[in-house]
This record gives sequence, structure tokens and C-alpha cells, in this order.
Amino acid sequence: MKIILIGASGTLGRAVSAELAARHELVTVGRTSGDFHTDMREIKSLQALFQKTGKADAIVCTAGSVHFGPWAELTQEKVDIGLRDKLMGQVNVVLAGQEFLNDEGSFTLTSGILSEDPIRYGAAASLVNGALESFARAAAIELNRGLRINVVSPTVVEESMTSFGPYFPGYKPVPARDAALAYSKSVEGKQTGQVYKVW
Amino acid sequence: MKIILIGASGTLGRAVSAELAARHELVTVGRTSGDFHTDMREIKSLQALFQKTGKADAIVCTAGSVHFGPWAELTQEKVDIGLRDKLMGQVNVVLAGQEFLNDEGSFTLTSGILSEDPIRYGAAASLVNGALESFARAAAIELNRGLRINVVSPTVVEESMTSFGPYFPGYKPVPARDAALAYSKSVEGKQTGQVYKVW
Repeated sequence: MKIILIGASGTLGRAVSAELAARHELVTVGRTSGDFHTDMREIKSLQALFQKTGKADAIVCTAGSVHFGPWAELTQEKVDIGLRDKLMGQVNVVLAGQEFLNDEGSFTLTSGILSEDPIRYGAAASLVNGALESFARAAAIELNRGLRINVVSPTVVEESMTSFGPYFPGYKPVPARDAALAYSKSVEGKQTGQVYKVW
Repeated sequence: MKIILIGASGTLGRAVSAELAARHELVTVGRTSGDFHTDMREIKSLQALFQKTGKADAIVCTAGSVHFGPWAELTQEKVDIGLRDKLMGQVNVVLAGQEFLNDEGSFTLTSGILSEDPIRYGAAASLVNGALESFARAAAIELNRGLRINVVSPTVVEESMTSFGPYFPGYKPVPARDAALAYSKSVEGKQTGQVYKVW
């Protein structure tokens, strides 16, 4: 398969890359690194990206930022960071990418454990992750040509514990390579509309 | 209790009003109708509203628009309608309203069945409903002074079948007064972080 991986240089992205590159042709994409660059907050940037990559059998997105911070300081603008970046960025990947997927191709997006199991400072992240999971369930029934879409929802990964560990007291981290297996399941399997929890 | 009901003139809002007004002091709010007016897409409009209503024991929101339409015509701008109105409108109600709630007061927001059980044309609505449910779960652990927050997730209501029925083939509608009971459970009960499904 030809697989476009957006967010390839991140912690999850590197593990997904290692998992999939062994068996597939991988096109790596990042905001400033990888084979091609894109700003997924702008649908035109994604359209330009896919024009350059050409058609693919799978598009995987492990990219997206959200605001973490004290509830008392949460504002509309801080929530908006995640709405524009991780949420609409990934929605834009689907809206722009669908015409560049071969028949029966797949999207795999990335949410996270906070949609169900919240932490202090994580309200904006929970919101975005819940939105992505419900969006994928809905998109799965509307995509045409046999296109599929799933979401991987990882808990905090071992490789991120230095920066994210303090936010996740008592959460058992998983190795990024375990999370990467869920991306393989989505891309190489046949299911659609699923949320694959890695926790 | 003193209860502020935003969206009081809508189908759900009228039923919630009928349920709660029998036992409580109700302040009705709408974009153009009710005791007070607000545009909940603008946090400043909500801040001005709550300055006028004064403190309350509960804030209930049954308001919010989302785009319904064919998947093939879905754009970033159409998704954005629901992000700005139903999603950020209700998030703004919480961000702006928390300082106007008395200790142990509550928020009750409104999502809908599409977060879990999608329909044709409903991807943008599913996204918004999933976001609201995860946001409420997260906000519930961060609100202070014993404040609570829950979400009511109704299926299509009987009174809306003329306009929404064709979108929901095979969905068993519920009377709006049944959905209104879930708002009573949230406001007059003691739970927090819950999604009350009425389907």
C-alpha cells in the first residue's frame, strides 16, 4: 500500500512509521519535516499537499495540538487552539483527502484517552478527542467508494512521560509501538467507524 | 431554586420549562425571545446576560444550531457553524456562567443521540455532540465550589418529527416531556459528569 502519514516526526508518528514502513510505501508529512509539508489547519494547504503526493491507499494522521492548562484560566481562545488544530485539522484531512484515496482506502485519525477518562487541565483536550471519535463514527457511514475511517485513542505513551507524565498521575503508559499496532489494525484491517483504544 | 434556561422557546426548552417551572423560579432566555436575550456564540453577550439575571442555582442550555446536509457538500465552513453555535455556545455558557452559579449549583447542557448513533447528513452534528459529552465529563472534575455539570442526550423528539423525522428513519421518537425529565434529574439530582441518554 501507499500510505500518507501526517505527523510522522512526532512520538506516535515515528512509531507508526516504523510499524508501517516495513511493509508499505510511506510518504511522511509534517508541518516542517518529512517528505512534504502542510498546515492542516488550512484545507487549501492539505489540498496542495495531496496534489503533490498523488493518490494513496491510506491516510494516517497523528498530528494535532490542544491547549492544556488550569480550568480557572480556560478561555474561548484557548479552547479554540484545539478546535482549529487537532480537531478541524484532522477533519480537514478527511474532507480534503477523500478524493485522493483509492477505492476502499482508509483514514486513521488520532484522539486520546481524555475523551472518556479526564485529567486536571485537560478539558479542551477531552472536548477535541470526543469530537473526533463521534465525527469518525458518522463519517464512516457517509464515505463512498468503500472508503473507511477509524480513530486510534491512545493513553499517554512511555516516550512522552517526561513532558506529559505529570499531567497523568496513575495512568499506565503504553509503549508507542503498542499504539502503532492500532494504526496497523485500522490501515491493514477492514473495519470502519471504530475507536481503537490503546489503554 | 432559581434556574436560568437558555433556549426556552425551542421544542425541548418549552418542555423543560413546563417541567421545572412547576417547582422553581425560572428565568427564560433566548436569542430573540424570553425574559432576557443573548447570543451565546459571544462570551461577552453571555457575561452581559448573567450580570442582568444575577446569581442562580442552575443554568440549563437547550439551545444550539448545527449544519445538516449531504456529506459530499460538507465543508470546513459548514462544520464551523456547529462549532461556533451549539458547541462553543454551550462551552461559553459554562465558562461565563460559573461565577454566577451559587455553591453546588449546576449546568445542564444538551448533546444528542448522534454522538453515538449517526445518521446520513449528520456528521457535523455528531462531532459537536461528542465534543459536548467529553467536555462535560472533563469539566465535572475541574469545576470548583461543588458546581456540577451534566449533559442530556435526547433522540429525536415527537414534536420535531415534521421537520427532523425524515432524517431519522427507524429512530423511535420520545415525547419532549420525557426528555425534560432528564433535565430535572440533572438540576435537582446530585450527580455530575453524566450523560443522560433519553433513547
